[in-house]
Amino acid sequence: MLGYKMGHNELRKDYILDRWVVIATERGRRPSDFVGGERVKNRKGACPFCPGNEHMTPPAVLIYKESGGTIEKLKDNDFRHKNWLIRCFPNLFPAFSPPDESGSIYHFSNFSEMMSAIGHHEVLVESPLHDDHPSDMEIQQLAYVIEAYMDRLRELSSKQYVKYVSIFRNHGAEAGASLSHAHSQIIATPLIPKIIKEELEASRKFWNETGKCVFCEIIRKESESPRFITENSDFLAFAPWASINPMEFWLFPKRHEASILEMTRNEIVSFASILKTCLKALKNLLNDPPYNFGFHMFTDPETGMHYHWHLEVYPKLATWAGFEKSTGFYINTVSPEIAADSLRRTI
Amino acid sequence: MLGYKMGHNELRKDYILDRWVVIATERGRRPSDFVGGERVKNRKGACPFCPGNEHMTPPAVLIYKESGGTIEKLKDNDFRHKNWLIRCFPNLFPAFSPPDESGSIYHFSNFSEMMSAIGHHEVLVESPLHDDHPSDMEIQQLAYVIEAYMDRLRELSSKQYVKYVSIFRNHGAEAGASLSHAHSQIIATPLIPKIIKEELEASRKFWNETGKCVFCEIIRKESESPRFITENSDFLAFAPWASINPMEFWLFPKRHEASILEMTRNEIVSFASILKTCLKALKNLLNDPPYNFGFHMFTDPETGMHYHWHLEVYPKLATWAGFEKSTGFYINTVSPEIAADSLRRTI
Repeated sequence: MLGYKMGHNELRKDYILDRWVVIATERGRRPSDFVGGERVKNRKGACPFCPGNEHMTPPAVLIYKESGGTIEKLKDNDFRHKNWLIRCFPNLFPAFSPPDESGSIYHFSNFSEMMSAIGHHEVLVESPLHDDHPSDMEIQQLAYVIEAYMDRLRELSSKQYVKYVSIFRNHGAEAGASLSHAHSQIIATPLIPKIIKEELEASRKFWNETGKCVFCEIIRKESESPRFITENSDFLAFAPWASINPMEFWLFPKRHEASILEMTRNEIVSFASILKTCLKALKNLLNDPPYNFGFHMFTDPETGMHYHWHLEVYPKLATWAGFEKSTGFYINTVSPEIAADSLRRTI
Repeated sequence: MLGYKMGHNELRKDYILDRWVVIATERGRRPSDFVGGERVKNRKGACPFCPGNEHMTPPAVLIYKESGGTIEKLKDNDFRHKNWLIRCFPNLFPAFSPPDESGSIYHFSNFSEMMSAIGHHEVLVESPLHDDHPSDMEIQQLAYVIEAYMDRLRELSSKQYVKYVSIFRNHGAEAGASLSHAHSQIIATPLIPKIIKEELEASRKFWNETGKCVFCEIIRKESESPRFITENSDFLAFAPWASINPMEFWLFPKRHEASILEMTRNEIVSFASILKTCLKALKNLLNDPPYNFGFHMFTDPETGMHYHWHLEVYPKLATWAGFEKSTGFYINTVSPEIAADSLRRTI
């Protein structure tokens, strides 16, 4: 239709906004797929993420396996390893996929800028146990999950065509999780996403003007505010001042680092611990509500020194409707002070 | 908690992003209101928007009533009028409310900027008939709806404290409609919302550089593209190049005007007609799916001359999850070309 053929989904830029979208036609969905009626498909069959069903997914790019008291990290090209603790593999329906011999395409004409959606899209199975979610899993297992995030981030962000790596988790069908086995997703993109770009620009500006990290200042303020939730030696949890989701909370490292790659072994355990504490409080408070979380971080040491990584957790308790979608202006019906207070009392 | 008391919900600005949120605590929701289980409340009782139940809502700020072959436009302070065609009244749980004698508050300190959420929040009942939605209503009735939008926009945008008026519609529970009687909502805000501001800035830049309206150029291009859906003498419908929602489409007036206030009587009917055509096609194609729509417009003639109003329709067919929410980067599984083609064939 546009006079060329390509092996990737398209990444398109809005006419005038700095807003990009993947036109993920590779997934081959037709409008008729959305016809009302039975929309939630409860797969009654085998869970493709459970041990023994590795053949139902692509070969793993990373598995963690216990071997004589230590963790062995392996690629798994022939599905030999059934007794894994963590398993990470390419998404069967990737929104972004690696460049191939046909190369990538960039196309620009008036009001139609696009490029190939090159990158990666992976699934990280967090535990061999189907229902072993972070709110309840052993700290050691959650520490493996975080270490695996770091391993994948290190590898993916080193690729020349990758400009950003998003690590996120969808929990519950209403929050977009199509399979219930505990898992996260990793998407490597050829562009820095809008929200990250805005944060980078704002934190660079603050750094240049004051010589300080804007996030370090925020942490200092929120550690003594009514939005404080909990902390340990290395991390702080609080409900952000202008939360756009009811019960939203953020986790920050106290140490100024731009990405999770800088975490020490102690900090990994410390992060696993505060993450579990907060997610367990959310679960207990609201009867295991659906939620999403996503890391904000930056791995380029040269342009990222003013940045400070963090994790944002968005409980899915409201519906963004016509007002939010058409204006980018949000309505939140629970104040972050009340959110923090309830979570604090539940911990 | 912050050392002052106020009669309004709070409007808060993100730490560093140009992103504002209403902390709508006036609605008095507690976290426990979100406890899982029976989330969708099907009111079995009387519909508060149906004729005869006017006492269940606040008094109307505007009603349309037929009187001897013409339309009478009235305020309705005592619920006398039962035989209305259109009825508009303040939302019982407003996100924004008018200033009162206590005045409004603006507060700024490091990382906590806020102001009173002054403004208006109204419900516009589109028909006395409960299920008379725009996809099926008489063109004349839909023209009344649009004329009532104009009346409310004219009044609200003339207020000194109002900087933007958003008119939008939520259709279906999954799209955030809490009541099923055909209705729209109107929210007047004390700030220009982020998406509108970005569009204004981009269109001003294009205007200054080229002497042309960026939207007129887009319309010209899309009227001959595979994303074209339908048109009449005054309006054009197309699926936008970088749709972020499956089956999204936009309606533009061919005449360059910044807001709906400039529509002639003929254009109102013409707009009603193309809107009904498109919504009916969507309904027929996807078995009456949930959707949201929102107007983008600007009523300040001095700063808005480069702007071009339009209506954006977002079918609610996907869930924005961890990736979209944490990055502002969207994945759409239906290309706008396929969306346009399906809608075109269904009209």
